[in-house]
Amino acid sequence: MASSPSQTSLLANFSTCELSDALIKLSVPHGGHVPDIRMISPSSSSPEIRICSPAYTVQMVPGSNKDAPCLSEHFVDTTPAGSVIVIDAPSETKSAVWGGLMTAGAQARGATGVIISGRCRDIGEHRSLGFPVFSRGHSTLGQSPFTRPSAINVPLTIKPQGPGENSFPSVTIHPGDWMVADEDGVVCVPKHLENQVIELATKSREVDAQCMQDIKAGKGIKASFKLHRGK
Amino acid sequence: MASSPSQTSLLANFSTCELSDALIKLSVPHGGHVPDIRMISPSSSSPEIRICSPAYTVQMVPGSNKDAPCLSEHFVDTTPAGSVIVIDAPSETKSAVWGGLMTAGAQARGATGVIISGRCRDIGEHRSLGFPVFSRGHSTLGQSPFTRPSAINVPLTIKPQGPGENSFPSVTIHPGDWMVADEDGVVCVPKHLENQVIELATKSREVDAQCMQDIKAGKGIKASFKLHRGK
Amino acid sequence: MASSPSQTSLLANFSTCELSDALIKLSVPHGGHVPDIRMISPSSSSPEIRICSPAYTVQMVPGSNKDAPCLSEHFVDTTPAGSVIVIDAPSETKSAVWGGLMTAGAQARGATGVIISGRCRDIGEHRSLGFPVFSRGHSTLGQSPFTRPSAINVPLTIKPQGPGENSFPSVTIHPGDWMVADEDGVVCVPKHLENQVIELATKSREVDAQCMQDIKAGKGIKASFKLHRGK
Repeated sequence: MASSPSQTSLLANFSTCELSDALIKLSVPHGGHVPDIRMISPSSSSPEIRICSPAYTVQMVPGSNKDAPCLSEHFVDTTPAGSVIVIDAPSETKSAVWGGLMTAGAQARGATGVIISGRCRDIGEHRSLGFPVFSRGHSTLGQSPFTRPSAINVPLTIKPQGPGENSFPSVTIHPGDWMVADEDGVVCVPKHLENQVIELATKSREVDAQCMQDIKAGKGIKASFKLHRGK
Repeated sequence: MASSPSQTSLLANFSTCELSDALIKLSVPHGGHVPDIRMISPSSSSPEIRICSPAYTVQMVPGSNKDAPCLSEHFVDTTPAGSVIVIDAPSETKSAVWGGLMTAGAQARGATGVIISGRCRDIGEHRSLGFPVFSRGHSTLGQSPFTRPSAINVPLTIKPQGPGENSFPSVTIHPGDWMVADEDGVVCVPKHLENQVIELATKSREVDAQCMQDIKAGKGIKASFKLHRGK
Repeated sequence: MASSPSQTSLLANFSTCELSDALIKLSVPHGGHVPDIRMISPSSSSPEIRICSPAYTVQMVPGSNKDAPCLSEHFVDTTPAGSVIVIDAPSETKSAVWGGLMTAGAQARGATGVIISGRCRDIGEHRSLGFPVFSRGHSTLGQSPFTRPSAINVPLTIKPQGPGENSFPSVTIHPGDWMVADEDGVVCVPKHLENQVIELATKSREVDAQCMQDIKAGKGIKASFKLHRGK
């Protein structure tokens, strides 16, 4: 893991939207956005909840895949404290890859949450434990026999799913990349862009605050953008 | 805009379901229903929230489209007071076409809400400002470089998306048509049908209230429909 | 209907996830899970709500189908007390097959809820009446002319819909099968497996409680599973 011992970053001050804006300015074509993964726990709408932690990555494979490697430990037991678990499940799986016992294990390890390109279950347990879970949906089915973990600390290439899946780029998440997740969605900030993103987002926030003030005062969006953004 | 200065209508007394029923009786094949657009703000479930206003229409095009016309003003700055902004984004776009600064601008103009065949972002800002937003989903990405506005006050032909998209008709929304939106979804009442819809919905409400009373009393649905609906 | 007069079962003590786990152990390939049907009423997230009742089944057909049989009574009027109404609507229909008057009729008959492979409408009415409704989504459109009921007390074969629809098995629900539904989703427990499922779920709950205690104490998921589950 490439992140600092404290596992915190000034990125935590910004919304996912502000971070995507900065990544777009840095010519990252997808703005770091992993589409269609939404907040499930601690509620489906908690404006005050924001994950901002380095990624600990887990690659799942179909249970029928006998060739892919197996893990010697349970992947939750090897989660670094202060990290967020990021799981890539086989595309379009109707079963869950995360449940209540895993939330308990992740909390015992000091994980800050889990972000799943796939489904969770035991919604009530995550909520009563107050553990942040972001996923594509939910299910009553557990991992076995549908899926199994095959690798940790590997890059994950997460493809968009559903309508528009072929017209939006995949996002590759490397271990230690900063994952930020809130009500609006999930964003990956590549580790090497951390400082540039913070710098750009800090400037934009100031400009947007000035725009907001003028727009609320009725000065018009075009005029406010022209004055404060210069275009 | 073809609507009256006061921008109100007796249509506001009816639920979207009641209005769809009236439009079906008038042989409008889709009952005015624009599928799969749902309430996002002021919350994801607010029974007391209902938009009922004439449509101010905005056509978005892909950002890569260099041929379509450009707007000289920001489309929010030209919103008529008392209207609802209706935006048609390119199908299946993973980015948003509406954010917090636009909500502030729309409120300053006196708009009553926004209905988006597409995505929004900055969910928390819309909610804290109490501005009604209906959309297909959300994203962390803004408009640029994915989409751009190309025309206002034009008819929008909104196609269904996702499962069943080929077996349900598109809905064409003309500027000034009445847009009604609540927890159950979004309905377009063509301006020229306003009075007929109000008349039919008024009668149906009375009949349905009698049915509800009898059904709650255990008289059976078939018998109650026979008695009050005549079939 | 094959269920007992009291229409209760020890199955009601277990979550849908626990029941799917037991069905998987019994080699039911889909674990009884009917994907992508979610709680709509009494709210979109009510941890204390769980339907557990024998299925009263209703098959809908497209309204354009003139050949399929017609019902002589309204299907709600023939609902057995203590049962849950399970409706299979034509795949991917954008209209609703359940509304407020039907909830009133179902409550008058003593039904415990409705589970719809399809859409509902009149969300506010179900919520204010406190009636449990699970569905794939919602709409402003009613049944007619889009769909109509054609048969009751017949087996329903419910196909998965949306992404992954071709890689997950259909679930067949027979009249009198136990339907359990909560925040995590919908599970069908075949009547003849009721006792075996209860036995397996009872054992698993005890083991899982021991695992949870150890995992919360930081003993690790792999070690806890090894100690209590034996693997």
